[in-house]
Amino acid sequence: MNIQQFQARAEAIRDNKAFELFVVTIIIFSALLIGARSYTIGGPWMTVLNVLDTGITVIFLVEILIRFLASPQKMRFFHNGWNLFDTAVVVISLIPVEHSETAVIGRLVRIFRVLRMVSIIPELRTLLNSLLRALPQLGYVLLLMFIIYYIYAAIGTTLFAAINDTLWGDISVSMLTLFRVMTFEDWTDVMYETMAVYPISWLYYLTFIFLTTFAFLNMVIGIVVNVLEDEHARVRAEQDAAEGKATLDDLAQEIRELKALLHQQQNNKE
Amino acid sequence: MNIQQFQARAEAIRDNKAFELFVVTIIIFSALLIGARSYTIGGPWMTVLNVLDTGITVIFLVEILIRFLASPQKMRFFHNGWNLFDTAVVVISLIPVEHSETAVIGRLVRIFRVLRMVSIIPELRTLLNSLLRALPQLGYVLLLMFIIYYIYAAIGTTLFAAINDTLWGDISVSMLTLFRVMTFEDWTDVMYETMAVYPISWLYYLTFIFLTTFAFLNMVIGIVVNVLEDEHARVRAEQDAAEGKATLDDLAQEIRELKALLHQQQNNKE
Amino acid sequence: MNIQQFQARAEAIRDNKAFELFVVTIIIFSALLIGARSYTIGGPWMTVLNVLDTGITVIFLVEILIRFLASPQKMRFFHNGWNLFDTAVVVISLIPVEHSETAVIGRLVRIFRVLRMVSIIPELRTLLNSLLRALPQLGYVLLLMFIIYYIYAAIGTTLFAAINDTLWGDISVSMLTLFRVMTFEDWTDVMYETMAVYPISWLYYLTFIFLTTFAFLNMVIGIVVNVLEDEHARVRAEQDAAEGKATLDDLAQEIRELKALLHQQQNNKE
Amino acid sequence: MNIQQFQARAEAIRDNKAFELFVVTIIIFSALLIGARSYTIGGPWMTVLNVLDTGITVIFLVEILIRFLASPQKMRFFHNGWNLFDTAVVVISLIPVEHSETAVIGRLVRIFRVLRMVSIIPELRTLLNSLLRALPQLGYVLLLMFIIYYIYAAIGTTLFAAINDTLWGDISVSMLTLFRVMTFEDWTDVMYETMAVYPISWLYYLTFIFLTTFAFLNMVIGIVVNVLEDEHARVRAEQDAAEGKATLDDLAQEIRELKALLHQQQNNKE
Repeated sequence: MNIQQFQARAEAIRDNKAFELFVVTIIIFSALLIGARSYTIGGPWMTVLNVLDTGITVIFLVEILIRFLASPQKMRFFHNGWNLFDTAVVVISLIPVEHSETAVIGRLVRIFRVLRMVSIIPELRTLLNSLLRALPQLGYVLLLMFIIYYIYAAIGTTLFAAINDTLWGDISVSMLTLFRVMTFEDWTDVMYETMAVYPISWLYYLTFIFLTTFAFLNMVIGIVVNVLEDEHARVRAEQDAAEGKATLDDLAQEIRELKALLHQQQNNKE
Repeated sequence: MNIQQFQARAEAIRDNKAFELFVVTIIIFSALLIGARSYTIGGPWMTVLNVLDTGITVIFLVEILIRFLASPQKMRFFHNGWNLFDTAVVVISLIPVEHSETAVIGRLVRIFRVLRMVSIIPELRTLLNSLLRALPQLGYVLLLMFIIYYIYAAIGTTLFAAINDTLWGDISVSMLTLFRVMTFEDWTDVMYETMAVYPISWLYYLTFIFLTTFAFLNMVIGIVVNVLEDEHARVRAEQDAAEGKATLDDLAQEIRELKALLHQQQNNKE
Repeated sequence: MNIQQFQARAEAIRDNKAFELFVVTIIIFSALLIGARSYTIGGPWMTVLNVLDTGITVIFLVEILIRFLASPQKMRFFHNGWNLFDTAVVVISLIPVEHSETAVIGRLVRIFRVLRMVSIIPELRTLLNSLLRALPQLGYVLLLMFIIYYIYAAIGTTLFAAINDTLWGDISVSMLTLFRVMTFEDWTDVMYETMAVYPISWLYYLTFIFLTTFAFLNMVIGIVVNVLEDEHARVRAEQDAAEGKATLDDLAQEIRELKALLHQQQNNKE
Repeated sequence: MNIQQFQARAEAIRDNKAFELFVVTIIIFSALLIGARSYTIGGPWMTVLNVLDTGITVIFLVEILIRFLASPQKMRFFHNGWNLFDTAVVVISLIPVEHSETAVIGRLVRIFRVLRMVSIIPELRTLLNSLLRALPQLGYVLLLMFIIYYIYAAIGTTLFAAINDTLWGDISVSMLTLFRVMTFEDWTDVMYETMAVYPISWLYYLTFIFLTTFAFLNMVIGIVVNVLEDEHARVRAEQDAAEGKATLDDLAQEIRELKALLHQQQNNKE
């Protein structure tokens, strides 16, 4: 069997619906294994889990190999982010994790196998891509929000570090405290503590909450407007593509032709 | 009286406005009874409540019977989910609940009689149906959210189970803890506890909050866009249906006829 | 001076911009008085406040009298809800509140004078009216939400009353507890308590949160769609009202006239 | 070198991309310095920070001077709010802060240097301006919200001051407590406390939450509608500007010309 035949066969397997279904089943099964491992279970079951885990790793390895063999240009295979991610997760799973120190890392890597669900199901991939594509459009709002956080954190550290070192010790801790305030999580405890020293400090918290809520709202509205615009553009493009539908320009053209005809008639008579 | 006359009479009762009003009144009354039962009340009143409860059960039984008799095809009656629900609630209410063990179950079933309100009032039925119809459209967002939860719960159990077994003991408990974090309910207590061991663990919580908030926002926006689109489609359909309103295609047709007329004139002359 | 002249003069005062500004100033001043009274202040100042308060009551009385005299049909004056509200607040303020028992009620009535701001400034009145007008449109969603609350409260009372009588004692207390759960206010404390007895009870809270959040979202979206539709209708009405703007129907009419003209020409020739 | 040449040279520097990039870098560096200062660091490093700080102040001073010299009308330079802000921050930084009393103020002023980021990057300036421009449009909603707060705070102080002086002592403290209730931060603790004295007081909190949530929703929807309208207006303006696109009015004009032509033909014949 030559290489070309080999590739064609790999491609046939890869594009088979049953193969895709089988891989999704294995991913779900591997997710259930990860869940099962989180319960305290007896020694014999642990051995079963380990065997099953090895089996899954082997199946994933074979699957990636088939995908790799099926791709016509081997070099391009790793240009795709999802392929790279899949390969990395499977290869790292191969490293034996006998020692207790690295066992945690091995288990953490196995968890990311669940993310393979996203790389396999096209609808999820599209969804995630559209989520990620929305982020940079909001770049400047996020930058503005970061500047607000940074300034308030710097003010907070300068004024309140002496009051509570755990909450306002340095600028990064202060930013975490401010995020807590933004989520309204026991924010009054934080406020009442500083108000005991600076009675006016409620102004600090209220302005911060107003500014961040306002910026957040703007971000949300920004996403809504973007989504609606994309939607409108899509609808308009569809309408334009629909055949047999007259446009105003078509009508104008027809009327111009009419006029030319009438002029011609007049010229003929004269 | 033959069966046909009987069915016609049942139909007349069922379609009577007064009958519908009477049933709604009884449902409201049964809801009030359920409420009254929740207060600690003296023995004699308890007897009154029990008698009234039996009365309501009998009325509901008669009502369902009328509906059943009124339906032309007896077989189809139970194909309707609401009819099935109504019958089930009433029939289970018939089982006597003297023993203290089953008394709780009997009372719980009686509570679902309030839901009959939804099955009787058409506007509520439409509303609930439209709510339920919106769910599957969001299926992939919900699946993505579940995957995010599952991965974070698996990571949380692996790393934090040793710190707090109550919150991170196994994967299902961890998912509940993560839902708590998503609702911002004392989430900093959870975070500060793990930050004492892993100082970097704030990253775990912040990324989780960002991802789920972002996915949730997308879900909301998805619903908004769907609703607006349905609305637009409805408006456009109405406009098209409106008589006597010229469309661009109508105009184009008229102009084409004009041109044909002029051509004809010219041909006549030549 | 006869009655007609008297009414005309009252009307002149009422429609005077300076008069409106004066009344708004007095309302703001009365609001400041109410605020000042909330601080613990010495006896002499208290006397000053009481004198000022009487002065404001007198000014309001005169103002309402002018409005009443200025209205052409005296009977219709009290058909306006805002006039009725204004008069009621001012008249009740007249009752002397010397006794300590009724003093609280007297002070509470005076607080509602601040609401007169809304009755005086037309923009605020319009805003409040539009807020209130939006409510009934959402009637069925609110009814559905109430049914959800009622059913969950009944279930909660039946199952959890024995666990915590303060939170789940009767159906009204349970509904308050459920509202607390919906605001995510220490809802995990409530849940963990019942989970100690019924480990599956997290399902009760999660389904409740999902259902109410979903219904709330629908309510919000309902308002958004309503507002946008009103907006679109307004824009379309404006466009139609704009003169000199051709519509498709106008064009169709013109073309029909053209055709008639051509037919006539043809008939003339034959 | 005369003044004109001097100004031209300053303008050349100001409009240089490299100059802008250099200033942004210095602002980021100054922000990092502020962050570094929040950590407890040894004495020698403190000296380094102070030297760097002086360097940044000098660079900013030179930069503002260049901007000032580059502006053609020196008087107008300070009419721009951002220029004024920049100059104020830099000039106040010049004041030596040796004494421990004024050291805090000096450090606080330096923090506002980070805001210069907004004044330098045009996109951020546009964003902030659009955020600020949206505020006055919402003026009446904010006024209505303030009135709701004021009335509830006055009622709260009158009734609950005797129960908890820390939360309901005077009207300003009550407004802060109400803001806390609106953020759902331990609001049930506040409620349960007053319910012990006035069992009906849950009505106070629930109506407040409903009113403010409803008003807030309206504010959000107001912003969304405004943004969408601006968007539509922009799109429509773009469409109108697009050349060669026929409008209904153009078509009507063409048809009118056609009719005139036909009438002329008829007149010629008669």
